[in-house]
Amino acid sequence: MDRLPGFRDFYPEPLPPTKDELWSMDARNHIFDSWRAVARRYGFREYEGPPLEPLELYTNKSGEEIVGQLFNFVDKGERAVAMRPEMTPTLARMAAAQERAYKKPFKWFSIPQLFRYEKQQKGRKREHFQLNCDIIGEHDRAADAELIALLIDTLRALGLTSADFVVRLSSRNAWSEFFASRCPDAAKAYDFFQIVDKLDRTRPEDSAALLAPLGFKLEEVQAFITGGQPNAELQLILDQLAARGLRDFVRVDYGVIRGLAYYTGPVFEAFDIKGEFRAICGGGRYDHLIKQVSGGKVDLPALGFGMGDVVLFELLKSRGLLPQFTAGLAVYVLIEDETLRADSLRLIQQLREAGLATEFSLTPTKGDKQFKRALELNAAHTVRLEKQADGSLAAKLKHLKSREESTLAPAEVVKRLVP
Amino acid sequence: MDRLPGFRDFYPEPLPPTKDELWSMDARNHIFDSWRAVARRYGFREYEGPPLEPLELYTNKSGEEIVGQLFNFVDKGERAVAMRPEMTPTLARMAAAQERAYKKPFKWFSIPQLFRYEKQQKGRKREHFQLNCDIIGEHDRAADAELIALLIDTLRALGLTSADFVVRLSSRNAWSEFFASRCPDAAKAYDFFQIVDKLDRTRPEDSAALLAPLGFKLEEVQAFITGGQPNAELQLILDQLAARGLRDFVRVDYGVIRGLAYYTGPVFEAFDIKGEFRAICGGGRYDHLIKQVSGGKVDLPALGFGMGDVVLFELLKSRGLLPQFTAGLAVYVLIEDETLRADSLRLIQQLREAGLATEFSLTPTKGDKQFKRALELNAAHTVRLEKQADGSLAAKLKHLKSREESTLAPAEVVKRLVP
Repeated sequence: MDRLPGFRDFYPEPLPPTKDELWSMDARNHIFDSWRAVARRYGFREYEGPPLEPLELYTNKSGEEIVGQLFNFVDKGERAVAMRPEMTPTLARMAAAQERAYKKPFKWFSIPQLFRYEKQQKGRKREHFQLNCDIIGEHDRAADAELIALLIDTLRALGLTSADFVVRLSSRNAWSEFFASRCPDAAKAYDFFQIVDKLDRTRPEDSAALLAPLGFKLEEVQAFITGGQPNAELQLILDQLAARGLRDFVRVDYGVIRGLAYYTGPVFEAFDIKGEFRAICGGGRYDHLIKQVSGGKVDLPALGFGMGDVVLFELLKSRGLLPQFTAGLAVYVLIEDETLRADSLRLIQQLREAGLATEFSLTPTKGDKQFKRALELNAAHTVRLEKQADGSLAAKLKHLKSREESTLAPAEVVKRLVP
Repeated sequence: MDRLPGFRDFYPEPLPPTKDELWSMDARNHIFDSWRAVARRYGFREYEGPPLEPLELYTNKSGEEIVGQLFNFVDKGERAVAMRPEMTPTLARMAAAQERAYKKPFKWFSIPQLFRYEKQQKGRKREHFQLNCDIIGEHDRAADAELIALLIDTLRALGLTSADFVVRLSSRNAWSEFFASRCPDAAKAYDFFQIVDKLDRTRPEDSAALLAPLGFKLEEVQAFITGGQPNAELQLILDQLAARGLRDFVRVDYGVIRGLAYYTGPVFEAFDIKGEFRAICGGGRYDHLIKQVSGGKVDLPALGFGMGDVVLFELLKSRGLLPQFTAGLAVYVLIEDETLRADSLRLIQQLREAGLATEFSLTPTKGDKQFKRALELNAAHTVRLEKQADGSLAAKLKHLKSREESTLAPAEVVKRLVP
């Protein structure tokens, strides 16, 4: 029996060579650990919600058309439910429910697994993990600068530099002003944003035909994109990023508009500079969403980004930025004399209690096979107990890289390795 | 809109006082981090699989009756699927698919979220996380000893002692021999085990009535349980645990039998000694399951345990073993002079790049309010930039616990905090 299409199995390294697409659990932990470490440095606190939510949470926000992309069903209690396709509605629900208890602004992050019933295409997944970082309760654009700085440092912590990626920064407000200066019907703004969002993927004549009824010429839209100067809100963000020494990672680019209806201010996407991959990350301000999700009960400005693990993994791999993963063994205990197994088990327990990753052969095994296994596992040391002529035990400790060997009392081994 | 019944929201500490049942994300991370650390010390490697699997994976193993307890549905591709109720079938699927690539025995662990459509009762969840540790490819009972030692050290690492919990160790083989000595019909063994498994929860006269057709008297079954001496396989496990100094944590108790059909050898459960909670953990040998799940393709002996997060959390809480969680802030940067905001941002960036969790006020805020916030967040230090008479900047570094204050050049702050 096979796993479902679009889902991933994560195996320990080294991964076997196989036609089947396997994912590395060690690489996943490497990325998640790095995400967590950087978010915490920025004072972000972690939260999580259920992977299954009421379907309404998503249709309320995105309309009924989203249902076609969901893993949704009716549960045994007759509830319409869906596996979460994104985290923001859960965050908005949780934040609205407990907002009084947390001092504003609060900075939260999460690493949820998200699910979408995508059409099957090569490399297209039906689940992925996403780092979600959000700041809730702050109107000032200083929060946008803080969030974008975090995004940049998240990618830098994994080894990427300004030669690898760029954050394209735009402003829904700048677009709204541009739109309003030429079209008085604000209700059509969303349609306009949708057309602009798809310019790259649409033939010019088709875009032009779509823009005409709204009163726009394709050329003036393109001129706005290429000639775009930072407006006041973007300038503040750029200044604060410059003060942090992060200005090189950001480019004002009004070609970014973000398709989703709920963005209200600055929006941004991060891309690899060579343009080989889909967006690494996207986000922006959504000042009205919490009010909408909470049914008007709670009104808080908010902003956030989502960064998926699949594109990031592929980018890191292509740039040679994934380390060689091992079991990280500190000690392999060799048991060559079976009469010493109980003594060896005592030593193994001491080593493990001292926090050292320790491995050994569970069953009687030839000495050279045990040693080979220690090498395969890339253990830092081997230890072997030996009976001395006077009946006492000695421990032979070997550092595998330097091949340095020393003989010491068994009780001294832990002290030597954990000074 | 509320979350689904039986599902949990995990919030950052400190948790607000509320009637709603909130869970601590910090406590969850504390438990997961500890689980991972101990498993790695034992040489276990982490894996993960999809939370959604083909329904068949579970009905093949447990029969159609399991469907009543599942979150199952038909997806948009007409596949019968289920949110995983346990990890062992996924493990067996993954191990069978790639077993050639991994040297036997392999020791794997995972922390999956599992889902069951349980009847709604107070405190009864429809999802939980479970540490799953398994050893695959080893017949020798030394593997059972290794697994039980890991289980014990997992609980000890969280602060629990032999005064808090005990592992009750039993043997399906001992029960099979006892059964065979009195009943020749091996096909009835499973029914017999089910009756024994429920002895605690069944009235004696009902148990006696159920046992009679199989040729057993209730008294002789009870005598076998109370008089049970370790058989050879249990004795080997006990000896190896004794060599590790862990004998005190284990008690032979044939009252444990584990209801599941697939156990084949030693079985065990961990309980709190006071008997206040459900089992903390359960496991045992299941030597035929991988063959069954792989449709006969791969035949490997295996054993494992599962430890849920809900009971464990409650036990730790009741024993006062959950630490006070904070944001773990190293520095709060006070910005009292707004003309120094850009300089302060530069310093903040340096602190964060040095790995220090650093927080500050995004907007102009009164000095005493900033300081109060630093105290609330339990920051270790505050830093404040100050303009000197000669126009240069000085940094005032304060250690909040000792109230020690020092003045240094801004460039020296990081060096002082990360020596």
